[in-house]
Amino acid sequence: MIVVMQQDATSEQVEAVVDRLEKSGFQVHLSRGVERTIIGIIGDRTRLGDMALEAMPGVEKVMPVLQPYKLASRAFHPEDSVVMVGDLAIGGEEIHVMAGPCAVESREQLLEAARQVKAAGATILRGGAYKPRTSPYSFQGLEEEGLKLLAEARELTGLKVVTEVMDVRTLPLVAEYADILQIGARNMQNFFLLREVARVDKPVLLKRGLSCTIEEWLMAAEYIMSGGNQRVILCERGIRTFENYTRNTLDLTAVPVVKYLSHLPVVVDPSHGIGKWQFVPTMARAAVAAGADGLLIEVHPNPAEALCDGPQSLTPENFAHMMKELRSVARAVNRQLAGGVADV
Amino acid sequence: MIVVMQQDATSEQVEAVVDRLEKSGFQVHLSRGVERTIIGIIGDRTRLGDMALEAMPGVEKVMPVLQPYKLASRAFHPEDSVVMVGDLAIGGEEIHVMAGPCAVESREQLLEAARQVKAAGATILRGGAYKPRTSPYSFQGLEEEGLKLLAEARELTGLKVVTEVMDVRTLPLVAEYADILQIGARNMQNFFLLREVARVDKPVLLKRGLSCTIEEWLMAAEYIMSGGNQRVILCERGIRTFENYTRNTLDLTAVPVVKYLSHLPVVVDPSHGIGKWQFVPTMARAAVAAGADGLLIEVHPNPAEALCDGPQSLTPENFAHMMKELRSVARAVNRQLAGGVADV
Amino acid sequence: MIVVMQQDATSEQVEAVVDRLEKSGFQVHLSRGVERTIIGIIGDRTRLGDMALEAMPGVEKVMPVLQPYKLASRAFHPEDSVVMVGDLAIGGEEIHVMAGPCAVESREQLLEAARQVKAAGATILRGGAYKPRTSPYSFQGLEEEGLKLLAEARELTGLKVVTEVMDVRTLPLVAEYADILQIGARNMQNFFLLREVARVDKPVLLKRGLSCTIEEWLMAAEYIMSGGNQRVILCERGIRTFENYTRNTLDLTAVPVVKYLSHLPVVVDPSHGIGKWQFVPTMARAAVAAGADGLLIEVHPNPAEALCDGPQSLTPENFAHMMKELRSVARAVNRQLAGGVADV
Amino acid sequence: MIVVMQQDATSEQVEAVVDRLEKSGFQVHLSRGVERTIIGIIGDRTRLGDMALEAMPGVEKVMPVLQPYKLASRAFHPEDSVVMVGDLAIGGEEIHVMAGPCAVESREQLLEAARQVKAAGATILRGGAYKPRTSPYSFQGLEEEGLKLLAEARELTGLKVVTEVMDVRTLPLVAEYADILQIGARNMQNFFLLREVARVDKPVLLKRGLSCTIEEWLMAAEYIMSGGNQRVILCERGIRTFENYTRNTLDLTAVPVVKYLSHLPVVVDPSHGIGKWQFVPTMARAAVAAGADGLLIEVHPNPAEALCDGPQSLTPENFAHMMKELRSVARAVNRQLAGGVADV
Repeated sequence: MIVVMQQDATSEQVEAVVDRLEKSGFQVHLSRGVERTIIGIIGDRTRLGDMALEAMPGVEKVMPVLQPYKLASRAFHPEDSVVMVGDLAIGGEEIHVMAGPCAVESREQLLEAARQVKAAGATILRGGAYKPRTSPYSFQGLEEEGLKLLAEARELTGLKVVTEVMDVRTLPLVAEYADILQIGARNMQNFFLLREVARVDKPVLLKRGLSCTIEEWLMAAEYIMSGGNQRVILCERGIRTFENYTRNTLDLTAVPVVKYLSHLPVVVDPSHGIGKWQFVPTMARAAVAAGADGLLIEVHPNPAEALCDGPQSLTPENFAHMMKELRSVARAVNRQLAGGVADV
Repeated sequence: MIVVMQQDATSEQVEAVVDRLEKSGFQVHLSRGVERTIIGIIGDRTRLGDMALEAMPGVEKVMPVLQPYKLASRAFHPEDSVVMVGDLAIGGEEIHVMAGPCAVESREQLLEAARQVKAAGATILRGGAYKPRTSPYSFQGLEEEGLKLLAEARELTGLKVVTEVMDVRTLPLVAEYADILQIGARNMQNFFLLREVARVDKPVLLKRGLSCTIEEWLMAAEYIMSGGNQRVILCERGIRTFENYTRNTLDLTAVPVVKYLSHLPVVVDPSHGIGKWQFVPTMARAAVAAGADGLLIEVHPNPAEALCDGPQSLTPENFAHMMKELRSVARAVNRQLAGGVADV
Repeated sequence: MIVVMQQDATSEQVEAVVDRLEKSGFQVHLSRGVERTIIGIIGDRTRLGDMALEAMPGVEKVMPVLQPYKLASRAFHPEDSVVMVGDLAIGGEEIHVMAGPCAVESREQLLEAARQVKAAGATILRGGAYKPRTSPYSFQGLEEEGLKLLAEARELTGLKVVTEVMDVRTLPLVAEYADILQIGARNMQNFFLLREVARVDKPVLLKRGLSCTIEEWLMAAEYIMSGGNQRVILCERGIRTFENYTRNTLDLTAVPVVKYLSHLPVVVDPSHGIGKWQFVPTMARAAVAAGADGLLIEVHPNPAEALCDGPQSLTPENFAHMMKELRSVARAVNRQLAGGVADV
Repeated sequence: MIVVMQQDATSEQVEAVVDRLEKSGFQVHLSRGVERTIIGIIGDRTRLGDMALEAMPGVEKVMPVLQPYKLASRAFHPEDSVVMVGDLAIGGEEIHVMAGPCAVESREQLLEAARQVKAAGATILRGGAYKPRTSPYSFQGLEEEGLKLLAEARELTGLKVVTEVMDVRTLPLVAEYADILQIGARNMQNFFLLREVARVDKPVLLKRGLSCTIEEWLMAAEYIMSGGNQRVILCERGIRTFENYTRNTLDLTAVPVVKYLSHLPVVVDPSHGIGKWQFVPTMARAAVAAGADGLLIEVHPNPAEALCDGPQSLTPENFAHMMKELRSVARAVNRQLAGGVADV
């Protein structure tokens, strides 16, 4: 952390800052330039956040030198983390595709979707039992009934299950059924929820908030990790931009950047990231080329009848076709798709 | 709602859309232009959200004609709503100032702040007992102890209390102590929490999400209102923009726009909206001129020692000075500040 | 400027940076922390921009300590600048209102508008002869004919004239007719144009770019000032945000912030900033309360027939009414409107 | 275009709108819903922009149904356009890499860069002779001297030359030397410049503005095309987002979306799009997977000595390595890199 003093700061003001820092156990390093005095601070950065140095007289600004996250940083953990979901390794050489409908709507719909995505090579089934909807008048999910159907689909297909947890009260129930707990974009900074999933022995898929920075995203991961759960999978799912032709703007730049700053695995959700199924296969290919460790893809047996996010759902046929294309892109970047499908 | 068909849509595709709409009980209105066929839909708009019309073959896009909120709209309720907090009327002719520290830190700090803001003319005391913090290593609030101190300060000063509720589990406890339940910006789309505060008989101060649109903000209000609680006060608290000299960008344009689209009262929080105390009094004045029904102002007996948001907190002296200036701006726009302070 | 070295930077890498800086005539100040070595740089900041220090091995990032602008900064020029436009002082105690149609469309339209805004108290006439239009199929302005009509209106009313210059080739012509040269938002970083207006002996109204930061805006002013023209008036005209109910989001926070960072006068254009006439008077009031030195207001004798920006234009009646309200807000913040209208 | 009337619009107001439209030669189509009357407009959309319908009494909003661009749209020109640059086809099966330094700095630097990028498989040389710089104190380019050096490099290597034109006055000079005229991001809406390059018989590389929408970008292309020059190549170069770890956010979603909406070729500039060389090769791969027709890559013989954009420049070695990787990704999506380099 560096404190930049105002041009006209007095020696007393500089000393007051130095004094306060030294009393709090920090070492300081003073540098008097022609136009400004600068105070470098050496010591435990996690303790600095609570000192309101910018409110002290004569202080112009406080600039952080180090990232505010630690457990999530690559500096702390130089090797890639691999998150195990049962026997599946997320973040290893294999790329995992998590596919299924946006919402669990019925037994038929879910089992049909599960069978189809399994056949095409997905290893994990996605499907929401609790749905965060912008409108109170929209379908809000089948809740516990949906969780049971997901478990049944897992039973039948062997796919693992990822599903969203929206709330601390329903967390124990969701954790009972899910293999991976999904934290949605709108809950990325629901700090109570983050602290609670930190105490559950399940991997967490942490979606990126709609307009957050990468630092805020990694700070959300830090909440979970500092609370005791190291099994965090990050999920890029599109950011809000000025473009309104698409639902969001899928930010693939985030993939190599996050992998540089952090050791955690990163998966990509092009379905939410764009919101129009036409562009999903192309951007799924680009995500693999950008280094994604996995994909989240919405697939619905009949998108036009979907109760949620139909316009961004692939048909099972389109999904199968996309999977085939993905295999060759994966090979071109020296990786391979998980999932036991013959590659012809 | 209007459905725009693709240029090369077939008659069968047009009919399929019309058919589906009519079977769902909507009236349709067909218009064939030179380049596009357009289908107007007449019927209950709240039921349209779940129909994935954009996923039907031949459909180019679906354009909403009406706002998706109803109870929160001025069309539904043409007169201004006044929200009563005990005997205080928010949204009437008087402007209410809610002031106090960001976080409750100690008995001395809170009581001192309460006395000072009361003396300067505030009518409501703000102070966080539960704090949403970006870093897990930052001070997270005194929790129940903080709530008790707020109640004590109310007892001593007669000020009403507004404090944040972060979570459904602690809602009953917070509701016991608070006069107004605050929903923070990061929880604006925490739909479980919105549904729960809808069932509590207390006014709700709903802060605007950092990057949400006005429509999303009013949809969040709609969640609370459709769940049974009509006493919603909207709070503009700054949006995220590309500017990084200030913490956020206070969006005063939102004040007249929201008051045009909705009947709900709107208050403004320049402290969070800018993040630097130097600019708070000026923007508070501008907020009053823009038609705000109230203000949320952070005041701390000693900002440089604050555990949270010191740089944006006014000293009690600066606060008192600001209040004086506000009175003349209020008069200039034919309103007046609540709070029984002699205006010299 | 501060150079932060990577955690694993070698002593050789640190020395290479120090060496290069010292050879270029800078003084350096080394600080070795536990986790990072930091190099403070002392010397002429304007010369640092061209050194690609971040491309040197071992360098993590380069952080500027001082603002990159100098002539535009308040540190360089602590007193408020007053820009004279003939005998009108922009940036002094009086607030000047610049009003008129978006585009000059015809003799009748312009003279009618000029007479009306003059009668209501405006001191400067606005009107575009060259119009930057998003569509090549839209009306592009009357060009030289429009400039002549502006001169005629000045002759008749005594109002000064502000009009946009879009291009270096037409600059001499526009400069012949205008009292203030307007640089539009889309040209804020047209550096060739900035360099040319720097050589003209006329005040420049520099509109803020749609998505620029305040620093970039002041750097654009610095281009004009370093080229020799100190008479720069800054104009906030709305920024692009995610809100699409309004055309732009008027950023009044920019007013006190820019006046803190710079000595230049700041005027506000609520017409472009919002794009809907209904909200213009309210936001004009708020702009005055926020400390604006002037306003730019679109007024059209018949907005529904306007060839450009009709929806954001006030009728002369609404304008006159707004002016009356502005006078009392101005008084409330100890300023007054210029323009010799009896205030009843 | 659709006009939505206000809920309380009178029949007279509806008729006034209908009347005006019919008198202007449009056909109208009236639809009276329960809550709103809607007026559909049939006729030449390019003539509608100048009618200020939203300013008419009783009108709530005007919604465009069709895109405002025509010549640039795929509806108008269903097949992909291929832009010839001499004998090179941009937009065909082959992917072209345009590489070289940000700015032409010296004869040695440019010729060295040209030789190296040619050897690695680039077909077009990039290099700025005129540089748009945020600071007036930064290196602004070698101007005509730079253009001559580019011509010399072309002579020696056979590479085509792309270079930026910043201004209508220098356009004839730049057009004499360049094979492709580049319009920079900050000039995307410099409409005078767009109109002038429309009259030159050279292909134009049109960079996307920092915060523009895809529609605005295509409208800028429409300016050039409607002025007579159909040879437009679009270039995605990163958009401004809230992320500040990278310089910009490269928006690869734009590639398939623009190719869906338009027939024009699209190239990608990951160097500016990210601003850190470390991430350029990965995002170049992803761009190819996303369907880009070409790439713009900054390469400098010695990035740490670069006068401009050193941190985002690849060394010739890194560039050569990247080119090798790109070949296999190109093959995986059934395309191939242009440039006669043996692929081992």
